[in-house]
Amino acid sequence: MTEHPNRTTIRPSGSLQILSYKEATQLCDQTQEGLNDLFRQCALAVLNTGLVDDNGLALIEAHPDFQIRVQVKGRGLQIEIENAPNNAFLEDDMIVGLQEHLSAVIRDLIYAKNEIVDNGEFDLEDTFGITNAVFHLARNAELMQPNREPNVVICWGGHSISRVEYKYTKQVGYHLGLRQLDICTGCGPGAMKGPMKGAVVGHGKQRYQDGRFIGLTEPGIIAAEAPNAIVNQLAILPDIEKRLEAFLRLGHGIIIFPGGAGTMEEILYLLSVIMHPQNNNIPFPVVLTGPECSRAYFDAVLEFIEFTLGRKASDKLTVLIDEPIETALFLKKGLGHVKAYREATSDAYYFNWNLHIPFELQKPFEPTHDNIAQLRIHRDQPEHQLASQLRQVFSAIVAGNVKREGMAQIEAHGPFQIQGDPEIMRRMDKLLRAFVEQRRMKLGTENYVPCYHIVTDMSA
Amino acid sequence: MTEHPNRTTIRPSGSLQILSYKEATQLCDQTQEGLNDLFRQCALAVLNTGLVDDNGLALIEAHPDFQIRVQVKGRGLQIEIENAPNNAFLEDDMIVGLQEHLSAVIRDLIYAKNEIVDNGEFDLEDTFGITNAVFHLARNAELMQPNREPNVVICWGGHSISRVEYKYTKQVGYHLGLRQLDICTGCGPGAMKGPMKGAVVGHGKQRYQDGRFIGLTEPGIIAAEAPNAIVNQLAILPDIEKRLEAFLRLGHGIIIFPGGAGTMEEILYLLSVIMHPQNNNIPFPVVLTGPECSRAYFDAVLEFIEFTLGRKASDKLTVLIDEPIETALFLKKGLGHVKAYREATSDAYYFNWNLHIPFELQKPFEPTHDNIAQLRIHRDQPEHQLASQLRQVFSAIVAGNVKREGMAQIEAHGPFQIQGDPEIMRRMDKLLRAFVEQRRMKLGTENYVPCYHIVTDMSA
Amino acid sequence: MTEHPNRTTIRPSGSLQILSYKEATQLCDQTQEGLNDLFRQCALAVLNTGLVDDNGLALIEAHPDFQIRVQVKGRGLQIEIENAPNNAFLEDDMIVGLQEHLSAVIRDLIYAKNEIVDNGEFDLEDTFGITNAVFHLARNAELMQPNREPNVVICWGGHSISRVEYKYTKQVGYHLGLRQLDICTGCGPGAMKGPMKGAVVGHGKQRYQDGRFIGLTEPGIIAAEAPNAIVNQLAILPDIEKRLEAFLRLGHGIIIFPGGAGTMEEILYLLSVIMHPQNNNIPFPVVLTGPECSRAYFDAVLEFIEFTLGRKASDKLTVLIDEPIETALFLKKGLGHVKAYREATSDAYYFNWNLHIPFELQKPFEPTHDNIAQLRIHRDQPEHQLASQLRQVFSAIVAGNVKREGMAQIEAHGPFQIQGDPEIMRRMDKLLRAFVEQRRMKLGTENYVPCYHIVTDMSA
Amino acid sequence: MTEHPNRTTIRPSGSLQILSYKEATQLCDQTQEGLNDLFRQCALAVLNTGLVDDNGLALIEAHPDFQIRVQVKGRGLQIEIENAPNNAFLEDDMIVGLQEHLSAVIRDLIYAKNEIVDNGEFDLEDTFGITNAVFHLARNAELMQPNREPNVVICWGGHSISRVEYKYTKQVGYHLGLRQLDICTGCGPGAMKGPMKGAVVGHGKQRYQDGRFIGLTEPGIIAAEAPNAIVNQLAILPDIEKRLEAFLRLGHGIIIFPGGAGTMEEILYLLSVIMHPQNNNIPFPVVLTGPECSRAYFDAVLEFIEFTLGRKASDKLTVLIDEPIETALFLKKGLGHVKAYREATSDAYYFNWNLHIPFELQKPFEPTHDNIAQLRIHRDQPEHQLASQLRQVFSAIVAGNVKREGMAQIEAHGPFQIQGDPEIMRRMDKLLRAFVEQRRMKLGTENYVPCYHIVTDMSA
Repeated sequence: MTEHPNRTTIRPSGSLQILSYKEATQLCDQTQEGLNDLFRQCALAVLNTGLVDDNGLALIEAHPDFQIRVQVKGRGLQIEIENAPNNAFLEDDMIVGLQEHLSAVIRDLIYAKNEIVDNGEFDLEDTFGITNAVFHLARNAELMQPNREPNVVICWGGHSISRVEYKYTKQVGYHLGLRQLDICTGCGPGAMKGPMKGAVVGHGKQRYQDGRFIGLTEPGIIAAEAPNAIVNQLAILPDIEKRLEAFLRLGHGIIIFPGGAGTMEEILYLLSVIMHPQNNNIPFPVVLTGPECSRAYFDAVLEFIEFTLGRKASDKLTVLIDEPIETALFLKKGLGHVKAYREATSDAYYFNWNLHIPFELQKPFEPTHDNIAQLRIHRDQPEHQLASQLRQVFSAIVAGNVKREGMAQIEAHGPFQIQGDPEIMRRMDKLLRAFVEQRRMKLGTENYVPCYHIVTDMSA
Repeated sequence: MTEHPNRTTIRPSGSLQILSYKEATQLCDQTQEGLNDLFRQCALAVLNTGLVDDNGLALIEAHPDFQIRVQVKGRGLQIEIENAPNNAFLEDDMIVGLQEHLSAVIRDLIYAKNEIVDNGEFDLEDTFGITNAVFHLARNAELMQPNREPNVVICWGGHSISRVEYKYTKQVGYHLGLRQLDICTGCGPGAMKGPMKGAVVGHGKQRYQDGRFIGLTEPGIIAAEAPNAIVNQLAILPDIEKRLEAFLRLGHGIIIFPGGAGTMEEILYLLSVIMHPQNNNIPFPVVLTGPECSRAYFDAVLEFIEFTLGRKASDKLTVLIDEPIETALFLKKGLGHVKAYREATSDAYYFNWNLHIPFELQKPFEPTHDNIAQLRIHRDQPEHQLASQLRQVFSAIVAGNVKREGMAQIEAHGPFQIQGDPEIMRRMDKLLRAFVEQRRMKLGTENYVPCYHIVTDMSA
Repeated sequence: MTEHPNRTTIRPSGSLQILSYKEATQLCDQTQEGLNDLFRQCALAVLNTGLVDDNGLALIEAHPDFQIRVQVKGRGLQIEIENAPNNAFLEDDMIVGLQEHLSAVIRDLIYAKNEIVDNGEFDLEDTFGITNAVFHLARNAELMQPNREPNVVICWGGHSISRVEYKYTKQVGYHLGLRQLDICTGCGPGAMKGPMKGAVVGHGKQRYQDGRFIGLTEPGIIAAEAPNAIVNQLAILPDIEKRLEAFLRLGHGIIIFPGGAGTMEEILYLLSVIMHPQNNNIPFPVVLTGPECSRAYFDAVLEFIEFTLGRKASDKLTVLIDEPIETALFLKKGLGHVKAYREATSDAYYFNWNLHIPFELQKPFEPTHDNIAQLRIHRDQPEHQLASQLRQVFSAIVAGNVKREGMAQIEAHGPFQIQGDPEIMRRMDKLLRAFVEQRRMKLGTENYVPCYHIVTDMSA
Repeated sequence: MTEHPNRTTIRPSGSLQILSYKEATQLCDQTQEGLNDLFRQCALAVLNTGLVDDNGLALIEAHPDFQIRVQVKGRGLQIEIENAPNNAFLEDDMIVGLQEHLSAVIRDLIYAKNEIVDNGEFDLEDTFGITNAVFHLARNAELMQPNREPNVVICWGGHSISRVEYKYTKQVGYHLGLRQLDICTGCGPGAMKGPMKGAVVGHGKQRYQDGRFIGLTEPGIIAAEAPNAIVNQLAILPDIEKRLEAFLRLGHGIIIFPGGAGTMEEILYLLSVIMHPQNNNIPFPVVLTGPECSRAYFDAVLEFIEFTLGRKASDKLTVLIDEPIETALFLKKGLGHVKAYREATSDAYYFNWNLHIPFELQKPFEPTHDNIAQLRIHRDQPEHQLASQLRQVFSAIVAGNVKREGMAQIEAHGPFQIQGDPEIMRRMDKLLRAFVEQRRMKLGTENYVPCYHIVTDMSA
């Protein structure tokens, strides 16, 4: 990996780049109090775009000399960068999309700290307080635009998918784009990039200039899944739970492509919400789709869900195999229902206030060995609660696979021990083995070493 | 004064109109905690534009049935208004500029309360804390735009001026506009409206589409000096001191037209800052200008300033009589110096961080009889401090003349008693008498009853 | 009159500024074949804006050294100018609006010559051929915009009007502008500038950014009535008749302010068209309006029209004295009818194809002594034909007063001899005397010397 | 092939859609005089986009019921279409890009007829007259934009290329797009679509909103190579020679991808121009590029060129195999030279006036058996003239393969007989056989039947 030799100075455009002296100081402050450490990590991830490597720990270690500083002067903010990854540049200039991403990092880190965490107004131990925080974070990132009809399609799926699957996500994106739908993903390569690339072309043919490519990420995952430069609205939420909540409140429908542990986490989170009795009548179109070759994958996922959460759960998930146009039409139609419902209930188009997300799903889950040991994976609870517990299992696996903190935990204490209902454990083990075989767990690893151990033998 | 019979619903455009449920609730909350009372007052003032009446108290009393409510739904914010002043409407539609002003009111009231006052981050008992708050308020109101060269000309002067003076302010505005300078005033009629009207035409001839007409006001004065619909960037600062600071930090040069007590307050505030030893080298072009018929007025003002604050003070003020083009050229040239200085000192173009404004000038001054009695109007202090004390005298007079709270004080306790160095008192008395004679104190009052008493006889 | 000392180079913006070598050569060609002489005259007129002098002959004579050349290179067209009038510049830069006007001159002169006159496609001896030419000229000048509702208000009236009348035209313009109506005039000062200045402010308050200020002129009049820089769509039609046709085909309603001979020409032209039997049912709102002090003027005009053309004529003209808001409302309402009619008849909003304009009104009338001697000013013809004959009388007077060619005629052969029905002659004499007394004939002339002689004594 | 059942009405946007009655009538006129036949053909081709079929004759035959009519009313032009190909629609709406293409067809057909052919101003039997006509056609189509730096890259290459080659063209396009270069091709699939698709993504990452995707076509070829909807500036030139001239005058550099007879025609045309002695010093970067698997193709082409036109010819052609980034850098650098040269010679950026194109290359070549028999394919002439003769051979082959008229000729009289220097004939035969083997001649034909016969045996 080469680094750009020269020190570079970036002058972001746009109105967000007006920092106060205090904010500029915070970004350069390398103490615990300051934001420089986090800023440096996120900035490095942003600039690392395009390099396919999902090891968040390795990235930081590979760039010990990377430095970033901000200054306020003359016409506005200046960002000074040393030893940045070379691929962020085109000849001597940083790619404009990445300059915007850097600005977004600055905006979100400062706002999250000063206006959310340090502002007494938000009670982050309370469900409404958290939702209100997500709303403010999204508003500050300009993710909510009034006077737009519901048209945000969330695309979930793996960063490590096959060539055929990747091409399929582009096709789906193309047909969404032709219908002037916008795309929102979790950033990164694979299923999160393909739909955007396709939609760019679809938007172009329709001369749809205001197309939005929204990327929602968080500091823990950004290094492993750097935003593609197509993303034209990037937001860094403070943690994985707020990011998941943002997906559900900002998006109007969801497409799930094949993926690995992260995608399972997302599916289980989604089920945990839409199966909640309070959300019974709220329309939320969901499609699972992929090319013919992904049929086995979806069968495995559906089988696991049906076994653990029942028919009621699998009924919420429409599966369309090798149907890119049908998928786009399903979403288009579903978004019409969403609009009608919001109108009828006087709810905003740009934020799904009505959706109930239980506090349990909002509260940050720290994937430590202790916390994992305390999960309750049993059938003696409502399905939406079991879904919530299961999602934490997969959240932990993602952390152990690619996140800096999680990888450190595994290095220190060995694989996470996952236990619970024996039959569920066996099924989970089977599902995860399938993911490993299909190489969905991590990029480019021929011999994946699991960061978890499924305790299938309870007598042990 | 007729009222618009129908209930009207306004749907503001723009991104700021995305409110959270909590914010919408605050705006409708009629308790002490809530913002409805303040919102209703400011909204009424905004909608009252064009009606020339500077009695802030009367306005509220004249519209007991005026109601305003906000709601969040569908495509965004809705504002419901009942019994609004008729002149805000054109046939059945609210004038678009006024719709924007209403949105600005909402934006600023909420931000000031939730993000400034209720956010522990800002220490409002500290000079840097206040400056930081002014910065954040201005940024949130989008008053600071990066990548623009310094071109904001502050125009101060009276709301109650003669026809000839008014036409002159239009001429000056026209020549500023031709030079693509933007105008910033305190809102209201007279010298605050004329330069904008002139500049609109100048901008038009130059096809300058991004011209800014900035209006800075505060809840106490907005009722008496409603923003003209030409204002395309309106900000409601929390109090008169933050508004004055905003003028000096956002503007790049100042033109002072003839005016009354309010203009004197502004001149004295300005002198108090630019005479401060720490600000010695900071370029800040200032011109006093008017038509031939205002010569006597400027002579009186200069005489008073020279007597009280010395030659050093009057040297800071360039006077140009009947010279609209020269005035524009003086500013244009001066702004060039401002730009050069900011570049040399690496200071932002859009916010004058370098200017030192003493805490004494930042701290809100409440014009009560007690506070006025404690003013120290004596020569045994540096000139910039005397200027600061004098400015509080005129601030009190403005309050007593046109502000709701001030008028209530006078009604309850009689005229403010102003005392100090006898010779200064005599001079002040002379100056104020001149203002009264020239009908600069209040609009349309043939028989102005002073809200103050200058204690010239110390033996009394 | 000072001239700008330096040679100046202008680089017009916009797509029309792409000339072929042939076109550039034509503009520089000083022979009869070439366009340089006409170009130089029109360019000089454009740059002379703001100087109030309606003597077209004097202008050219006063600037013997004025030179203009065009060149095609690099990024596009370059215009080189020497010894231009100083008032076209602001310090060293030409006012942007005037740069646009220069571009319009180039565009229109070339198009009229190469695509209309020299293109066999247009039969200019035929009524449809002329209308088609007017259409093409207007389209090339981008005067017709699809997808806009009918909102173009023609404002006619004198360039030499009183201060009170001028202010009134501004007021009317302001109220038109508030209603988002666009203004189209014949360029020049007075009643052609006031409504635009007023409308700029009205548009601004409504944040109406696309406001159009259309100026229609022709080479003969442009020197006497230079377009004001507010005009943002300037078109130079080849002759007065095409210009008059353009007014009627592009405008949706007409306001007539007080004026002199030119305004009378316009009123008579208008009556000649709208009184034509074929145009009976076509809605075309017309208002005559002015301040109280113009009442006598309108009385005189109406009296003359009623006497010569009858009640049927005066019934077509609504008079509103001192009613700026009512005038705007009348137009707004009338334009609604125009829209309904165009919809019902499937006619375009942007060009009034349905209106029948007789060939007699389209054919260029050359104001020579011979042609004037042949006018038939008698009652033994339909009213609309008499109107047409009368309009030629006033056309001749305008030419003799302010146009280069006409003034040359008068100098060579003495005043035009105007004769016809004795009573009509007496009435005309009376009307013209009133215009002279009211100083409506020419600017700033205390002792107007008529360029005509009304033959009232038939026995002579 | 399904057809869209409903009659559809399109209302084009943009200012070009203002037609006169005469123009609308011409478009609907089905006589020889009128434009309806040509209009119907071109419109059908445009709407047929995306269907891969290069048989221009078949297209018309396959849609006997397709009808198109234009009408002028209300807000502007209306286009009524019956029985259009289904793939032009997305559910019920025509794809916006295709609506624009329809408008371009209307604009260009009318302009070519009324303003070029029927306007005596253009002498089409003269080299300057033709160049002037190309200039006017391009200007009317808004292809020339002032104030843009030279950045138009012509991409030539086959419509029938392999998957790997197609992907390579996308890659090259992506790297051109990242460098904010615009793409101009001849429309159609394959090498004419790939670079645009790639560049859309590159532009997106750089937030380059004004990217141009120019398609130059002509009535004969449009049916076989329908413009892709990405094309956002479509122009229909009257014939193949004006189209080739437009490429060279509007483009600033050329990339040649693998192709068949059409690409050979383009290469030979290009060589014929740039080898002309008068064009010796004019910079014009040219690259031949393709993936590794196209190496044999380029070898064959180069060999043929070197044999027939000598080393001087092949030296003008830089070959870069499997080097997408280098290709982009080569162009970027070459365009810098073009800019410097235009500046130095005061030539326009947007039109290469300096390039000498001999009349022989401008004059429409009609591919009849007679004309082909008269070609002079011998070595006793300057290389650039031989190149010109050779290009006519390939022009004829293209016509016989895919153009309506050419196919009719072949049907009536059998294959074109191509003869000349025996060795050149043998080489040509070899080259063409290679094209046939590589399936570059026509789309999807397993058994290509040549439309030509190379007379290699001169004794015959």
